[in-house]
Amino acid sequence: MTGALTAEQTQAQKEFRAFADHHIAPHADTWHREQRTPPEIVRLLADEGLLGLPIARQYGGGGCDAVTLGLLAGELGRACSSVRSLLTVHTMVAHAIERWGSRAQKETWLPRLARGETIAAFAVSEPDAGSDASGVTTRITRDGDDWRIDGHKRWTTYGRTAGLFLVLGRTAQGPTALLVERDTPGLRTEPIDDLIGIRASMTADVHLEDCRVPGGNLLARPGLGVSHVVGAALDLGRYTVGWGCVGILDACLEAAVDYAGRRRQFGSLIKEHQLVRRMISDMYTDARAARLLCLEAGRLRDARDPGALAATSTAKYFAATAAGRAAANAVQIHGANGCGPDYPVQRYLGDSRVMEIIEGSAQLHQVGLAEYAFQDHAPRSHR
Amino acid sequence: MTGALTAEQTQAQKEFRAFADHHIAPHADTWHREQRTPPEIVRLLADEGLLGLPIARQYGGGGCDAVTLGLLAGELGRACSSVRSLLTVHTMVAHAIERWGSRAQKETWLPRLARGETIAAFAVSEPDAGSDASGVTTRITRDGDDWRIDGHKRWTTYGRTAGLFLVLGRTAQGPTALLVERDTPGLRTEPIDDLIGIRASMTADVHLEDCRVPGGNLLARPGLGVSHVVGAALDLGRYTVGWGCVGILDACLEAAVDYAGRRRQFGSLIKEHQLVRRMISDMYTDARAARLLCLEAGRLRDARDPGALAATSTAKYFAATAAGRAAANAVQIHGANGCGPDYPVQRYLGDSRVMEIIEGSAQLHQVGLAEYAFQDHAPRSHR
Amino acid sequence: MTGALTAEQTQAQKEFRAFADHHIAPHADTWHREQRTPPEIVRLLADEGLLGLPIARQYGGGGCDAVTLGLLAGELGRACSSVRSLLTVHTMVAHAIERWGSRAQKETWLPRLARGETIAAFAVSEPDAGSDASGVTTRITRDGDDWRIDGHKRWTTYGRTAGLFLVLGRTAQGPTALLVERDTPGLRTEPIDDLIGIRASMTADVHLEDCRVPGGNLLARPGLGVSHVVGAALDLGRYTVGWGCVGILDACLEAAVDYAGRRRQFGSLIKEHQLVRRMISDMYTDARAARLLCLEAGRLRDARDPGALAATSTAKYFAATAAGRAAANAVQIHGANGCGPDYPVQRYLGDSRVMEIIEGSAQLHQVGLAEYAFQDHAPRSHR
Amino acid sequence: MTGALTAEQTQAQKEFRAFADHHIAPHADTWHREQRTPPEIVRLLADEGLLGLPIARQYGGGGCDAVTLGLLAGELGRACSSVRSLLTVHTMVAHAIERWGSRAQKETWLPRLARGETIAAFAVSEPDAGSDASGVTTRITRDGDDWRIDGHKRWTTYGRTAGLFLVLGRTAQGPTALLVERDTPGLRTEPIDDLIGIRASMTADVHLEDCRVPGGNLLARPGLGVSHVVGAALDLGRYTVGWGCVGILDACLEAAVDYAGRRRQFGSLIKEHQLVRRMISDMYTDARAARLLCLEAGRLRDARDPGALAATSTAKYFAATAAGRAAANAVQIHGANGCGPDYPVQRYLGDSRVMEIIEGSAQLHQVGLAEYAFQDHAPRSHR
Repeated sequence: MTGALTAEQTQAQKEFRAFADHHIAPHADTWHREQRTPPEIVRLLADEGLLGLPIARQYGGGGCDAVTLGLLAGELGRACSSVRSLLTVHTMVAHAIERWGSRAQKETWLPRLARGETIAAFAVSEPDAGSDASGVTTRITRDGDDWRIDGHKRWTTYGRTAGLFLVLGRTAQGPTALLVERDTPGLRTEPIDDLIGIRASMTADVHLEDCRVPGGNLLARPGLGVSHVVGAALDLGRYTVGWGCVGILDACLEAAVDYAGRRRQFGSLIKEHQLVRRMISDMYTDARAARLLCLEAGRLRDARDPGALAATSTAKYFAATAAGRAAANAVQIHGANGCGPDYPVQRYLGDSRVMEIIEGSAQLHQVGLAEYAFQDHAPRSHR
Repeated sequence: MTGALTAEQTQAQKEFRAFADHHIAPHADTWHREQRTPPEIVRLLADEGLLGLPIARQYGGGGCDAVTLGLLAGELGRACSSVRSLLTVHTMVAHAIERWGSRAQKETWLPRLARGETIAAFAVSEPDAGSDASGVTTRITRDGDDWRIDGHKRWTTYGRTAGLFLVLGRTAQGPTALLVERDTPGLRTEPIDDLIGIRASMTADVHLEDCRVPGGNLLARPGLGVSHVVGAALDLGRYTVGWGCVGILDACLEAAVDYAGRRRQFGSLIKEHQLVRRMISDMYTDARAARLLCLEAGRLRDARDPGALAATSTAKYFAATAAGRAAANAVQIHGANGCGPDYPVQRYLGDSRVMEIIEGSAQLHQVGLAEYAFQDHAPRSHR
Repeated sequence: MTGALTAEQTQAQKEFRAFADHHIAPHADTWHREQRTPPEIVRLLADEGLLGLPIARQYGGGGCDAVTLGLLAGELGRACSSVRSLLTVHTMVAHAIERWGSRAQKETWLPRLARGETIAAFAVSEPDAGSDASGVTTRITRDGDDWRIDGHKRWTTYGRTAGLFLVLGRTAQGPTALLVERDTPGLRTEPIDDLIGIRASMTADVHLEDCRVPGGNLLARPGLGVSHVVGAALDLGRYTVGWGCVGILDACLEAAVDYAGRRRQFGSLIKEHQLVRRMISDMYTDARAARLLCLEAGRLRDARDPGALAATSTAKYFAATAAGRAAANAVQIHGANGCGPDYPVQRYLGDSRVMEIIEGSAQLHQVGLAEYAFQDHAPRSHR
Repeated sequence: MTGALTAEQTQAQKEFRAFADHHIAPHADTWHREQRTPPEIVRLLADEGLLGLPIARQYGGGGCDAVTLGLLAGELGRACSSVRSLLTVHTMVAHAIERWGSRAQKETWLPRLARGETIAAFAVSEPDAGSDASGVTTRITRDGDDWRIDGHKRWTTYGRTAGLFLVLGRTAQGPTALLVERDTPGLRTEPIDDLIGIRASMTADVHLEDCRVPGGNLLARPGLGVSHVVGAALDLGRYTVGWGCVGILDACLEAAVDYAGRRRQFGSLIKEHQLVRRMISDMYTDARAARLLCLEAGRLRDARDPGALAATSTAKYFAATAAGRAAANAVQIHGANGCGPDYPVQRYLGDSRVMEIIEGSAQLHQVGLAEYAFQDHAPRSHR
């Protein structure tokens, strides 16, 4: 199913898939077990221009459209959700800079991010602030021309390797975003191991103690940190996470189809059992629906349609919960083998679980999507 | 959400909706209660050219594309599933004639069907043969130049009003399809009342006793009745039923949004309750996904893409089960009012239940869709 | 499965089942279609002492324990949810009088209710007040020694036949309960037809206009109408509704087992199809769990254990949602026949839908049961 | 909720809980991470008599009833599913010996198993034989008075520590069970690491190459290995696994209640959010239902009621799927913290996933339970 891509998009997807099949998929279980992404693969992604794909060409990026970025996220997600999450956080920060950064910030950072010379990470969550970003307590105070930051950021994906952090804190004006380089004194990262999913994602705590950055590192105005900066970044993050879930769905389908076509039980291939077929039919249906929802979100993004926001949330919510169902069923089809280390489905299960929580938990969408329904389907008299 | 329709399609949808909002929706609950479709609305549909919309222009039809037909089915389904089912069965028979009919059959019947002068119905199911059409036992025997038919057809939608029946029976060669006019001696219809859904659909038993039709009424060759004739018709039927379910989803959303925005309980509008919001968010998500799957199926049909078959089954399966969920939740949101006669949601519940059974039950798709998954996602080495 | 009943309880259940199998089940579909409960069956239930079974012996009732009452509700529910709902509302009012009535009220009413000479109904819901009983707007004012009532009660089950109404209204002190006889001037009932379920339940609107009752008809003190009177009645109502759902589950299982053992499709009995088996296995599991939860609730009631409240809500919530699942699956197993008038499963579907709404909607329990969890499973340090 | 235990059972449960709370629960996350059960805790269980609790007193066991064994499994499962699985496999083998062993086998082995001096493990699964035990290919051949065994057993829980294996192989007579001591030449175990759940369960491959045991090690007759020996063991295994899932449900509830009562988001404790309450209400309901189903199975076992088999399968199926739902929701309630190493819910998720596969997968029960439904709910005329 192509969902009517352009010839360029189809070609791009083919190349992304070949890249992921060759360089990522065969190693993903190992990285999962070792809980690390080797620098070599990050280097390779950078060299191929994949980390800078959506950054504007004037900054050395690929200037790709949203659909193409989605296809990349899908193919990376099909191979390894950790690597896909690198794309997600890196492009979230790049997007925030492109959208809200000063000219100097753009010129300083975007070329480095486009080349993948610097990896960017998103330091927003805190031990006590998750889906509700406006609840962050990290303090940002003015100190002469500098900003001083004190706080504890948690769950920073690729926090161990990032060279640049988008840090959300709180000034008197409200939530405020700053760019902070890794080697800034007072910034210290600490690995978080033993995650349930995206185990190779180099996730870290980021501790900021009396950490000072120049005034020019402010992104947008104080007080706009959530409404503008983090909001825009999260919208893009949701988009690539949604596509990453399409990748998980495809991976689950492939694993299930492969296994069901080889495993015998009770005298026949398990692909002949109706209950197995049902699980596969449901995965197949969900995978098609999730892809179309993500494609729709991509097209609306590319058309700068205001409906893109609703489409992206819908796509992420559907794709993430569908990936969760698919992974659970893929494990179930594999039986005891699905619980062991020899098949990738165990990894998909953990990864999909994370997807239902990050970039807007399922519950957040269950509350929030209704708002779009109230707008789109209001009784005529109320419109 | 437009899902990128052409300007013509968008305009057509607008007209379909206006027609349905004006002529159908306000009366649908009454028709449901009275268990009949008034002849006037059938006449009106015919006069507007809506019953012949997909029939080729050379036969006086509208020659519309599959997407436009889908939009029509969606808008009719949003207003009244019974009326939508008239479109479904009528166009199924017309399609079977266009696809497999002789030149004489086309020239005789298509103009009448295009003008809606004759209503066509699909007499395939029997008391003991449902999803498994090849299990029909109606006997078709050669008698000189004529065919003689003896059997009992059940669940014939609009069987009470149809002027032409596509009858599936069995010859020595296997399943065989014939065209049978209502006034053929030996054909007798009997209403089936008190259905759970599509209660206005004039459903009937069709009894055929020593019923004779000329040799020229054979559709395709003997033995091809299921593989070719009914198969093609069912594929189209699934398509319009899928769209009809998109209509039910929209109708449920509208009813839920309207009610939740006016009903107070425990001191606030129930639209503020998270559990209500979740039901609406899920409907909204499902409605978007169902529409995109149906659109995709329509586009592949229009492109004569062999993938249309899989896309249509997927769309129908998803849309029908989603409509079932949405209707149950719409009733739940309405509370006791949802169980009473003053709101249309009770009707949606019954209608959606029928949708999960006709034109391929949910179970049939749960077994069958896996086959497409095995093809599309086979391990490279097996492809 | 007996769940360890006493010999008396087992014997009672056997008799209830025989009664329901003989006098109710064969006619339930007709009553459903005709939307009425014939007076003869009400008379028969009364004569058998079934309507007064849980009323204390000193008032001429059967003085049965809660488990036995539950078994009766289960067997009636298995045969006809409308008739079971008669037991529910009648015993709710009787229970409220036994628990909160004055000596005079008990002596006046309980013998008549015990003999089934008078049918009692529960007039609490209003057009704008459902699950939230404290939101009623019916006005109760003092007028000399009398109480004057003005308001509109809706969804009063057996409101068409009841001789005595427990009416909830509002005084300056808050929600207040009164007993109102049918022939009181100013009381008028109006049938509500075309319900989705319990269609034979003689449901009515109750209009009260300048309706006056003697001061002695006050049940408990003004202001205690919800917290004491309706609360106690609803707790019992939930209990018998929960058991009624166990009956629906049993009925669905029986219908599904019977049909699946006779219907052939694709060359074998459908009971051999894994997807059909799964639906039946799930019904079977749910039916067992629902019965045990109801039994547990009954035992705790009989032991006057304060945990009975939580157990009853849990049992009702589980049993009602399980009945909804079972009925949908029973229809699905019957295919087109499940949508038609020849099998009882269509009735079960509508009835189960009502069960998820009345006596505490599913949503109410989804919010409320957590409270018991917080109590029962609080971290040790908080207890 | 006590479910009406006897005073002894209530007391026993209290002691089991105190033991598990003190010696197991605080360490379970560490053992999970380190993927091992320390010998000390096995020793302690043995010393407390817990490993021999259900073995007859004449062999030095505790001679406890099935309900008490279930309570033990529940409390162990609440603390650590790996340790609970030790109880499961050890008692499965002991039960098989008690039920089918020769007098010599009983006198030799049961005292050692009762004292926990020897740990017993169940070597039935193979790389190509899981739920379908009769598909094993391990060869057992007669060699003089000895039996020779050649094969590869997989997924043997506590295979790394067991001193005695119940090995299922195949002779000319069919599936055949043998007792094999660890130090038998030709037997070699190999750890299986990185499981998704029960990660501390010392699971191993068991390789048998030209492995010889005396003739007296045959358990029951050749050919009865599945129908009698493994069948009886699996029935007991299902029973303790079902209870283990009740323990997981309790653990999930406790974790969720604790977290929801302390975590703030969007300005309030998340326990005030309806969507969180719903997840907790559903866990609570499922936990109660699962416990009652397990209790019922235990009582029927204790009564030697033939219905115990159906009750056990039902209980295991319900409890395992409910544990899966509860664990997923417990993770979801914990948000990002649920995906990290600081809370036990991640462990519950993996453990519950295993429970849906072992001792009869969900699918096996979905096919098999229907059989009991056909028996219990057959139309009267067929009985």
